[in-house]
Amino acid sequence: MRSPEAVLAQLGLPLPAPLQLPAGTSLPFALVRVVGTRALISGHGPTLPDGRLAGPFGKVGADVSEAEAVAAARLTTLAMLGSLQRQLGSLARIRAWTKVLGLVASSPDFHRQPVVLNGCSDLLLQIFGPEVGAHARSAIGVAVLPFNLPVEIEAEVELHP
Amino acid sequence: MRSPEAVLAQLGLPLPAPLQLPAGTSLPFALVRVVGTRALISGHGPTLPDGRLAGPFGKVGADVSEAEAVAAARLTTLAMLGSLQRQLGSLARIRAWTKVLGLVASSPDFHRQPVVLNGCSDLLLQIFGPEVGAHARSAIGVAVLPFNLPVEIEAEVELHP
Amino acid sequence: MRSPEAVLAQLGLPLPAPLQLPAGTSLPFALVRVVGTRALISGHGPTLPDGRLAGPFGKVGADVSEAEAVAAARLTTLAMLGSLQRQLGSLARIRAWTKVLGLVASSPDFHRQPVVLNGCSDLLLQIFGPEVGAHARSAIGVAVLPFNLPVEIEAEVELHP
Repeated sequence: MRSPEAVLAQLGLPLPAPLQLPAGTSLPFALVRVVGTRALISGHGPTLPDGRLAGPFGKVGADVSEAEAVAAARLTTLAMLGSLQRQLGSLARIRAWTKVLGLVASSPDFHRQPVVLNGCSDLLLQIFGPEVGAHARSAIGVAVLPFNLPVEIEAEVELHP
Repeated sequence: MRSPEAVLAQLGLPLPAPLQLPAGTSLPFALVRVVGTRALISGHGPTLPDGRLAGPFGKVGADVSEAEAVAAARLTTLAMLGSLQRQLGSLARIRAWTKVLGLVASSPDFHRQPVVLNGCSDLLLQIFGPEVGAHARSAIGVAVLPFNLPVEIEAEVELHP
Repeated sequence: MRSPEAVLAQLGLPLPAPLQLPAGTSLPFALVRVVGTRALISGHGPTLPDGRLAGPFGKVGADVSEAEAVAAARLTTLAMLGSLQRQLGSLARIRAWTKVLGLVASSPDFHRQPVVLNGCSDLLLQIFGPEVGAHARSAIGVAVLPFNLPVEIEAEVELHP
């Protein structure tokens, strides 16, 4: 089986640079925390290739369309993979995705959060295959997200010993 | 000690059929993901015995009453148990409940989410007893949930080796 | 290295008494659930030294200021440490913080949840140091929290075997 990095290269999907925070913000925590064979991935948002947060901003169903939110979930997934690669050295160290928690800043009448999060799940399955890439998932519509992002995703993976 | 299935039978609580998604929806993830001795349970909603999502729909405190929300939390718990049984073969493989995260789609002035989630916690303790059934829990009021559900619950259990 | 309890004493930060629930409320779950070397910490809110829930109540950005919310996140962290100490006997049993999930009841235009949660992260790092205290984190703005609290935090730690 090809490495996740090889699949990403074939798909033409480079991983973004490290997160560049908006001025005056400090995030005193680990983007990826490894304890034993578990790697816990902090909540990420969509980023541009240079690591700046990617728009559009606002609530899905009002300021942001469903299609834009799916694209944001996809960019968020790439941002998580970038953080994982920098922390782990290689994405091939991932033995199994375990859990994805997806948060969608939603207008009160938008309840297609699962469609938005499929932008993450589909990409994980494409890159890691159906066994390593399988994951439990919850999708939630929340009032508002940090930096007015439309999508935030946290996740957990299990590493090879 | 009697098996969880025996307690469910005594309580007259059959587990529902597998989730039947609304037309046009695809959920490309695992309802239960087993990694080692951990089983991670995706966000579930209340279902009817045939697996269709159960109403009432909408926000608790506005469209859905507190009592209806407690009943929805109970149905959601049965849906999770159905998914666990199909994945594990037997609920007796569960050594310990570890974590319950309960999400309640809430009107802005409804803050009795813990009462709603007790519909889940009380049932788990009744079925699994105070040692296996004990769990950490968080209850949150969110803006809106997938499919306009009033309640969504995700959880994690530890399995016998 | 000094014990977490010694650091708390030096900082003049006593841990609060056990949570005193509002009348008529029952929470049938474990505030801390230990399974193997993992301790899962239920969602906590800010408490006064005597264990009663601490105000101000309401939504950050409307009823509660950002500075008050940072203070609430700090009190919530002390409440979690109190629960951990009662469950574990000693905070020195904590080998690593792994995960913090911070929920901020937010007005629709408040998106500085990370600043609020830094009240938790900064205190954990001060008490446990940069290695034990490091953690993955997600911050979310939600519609409404139990008991109308402005902040709720759940977390997970890994224990020494």
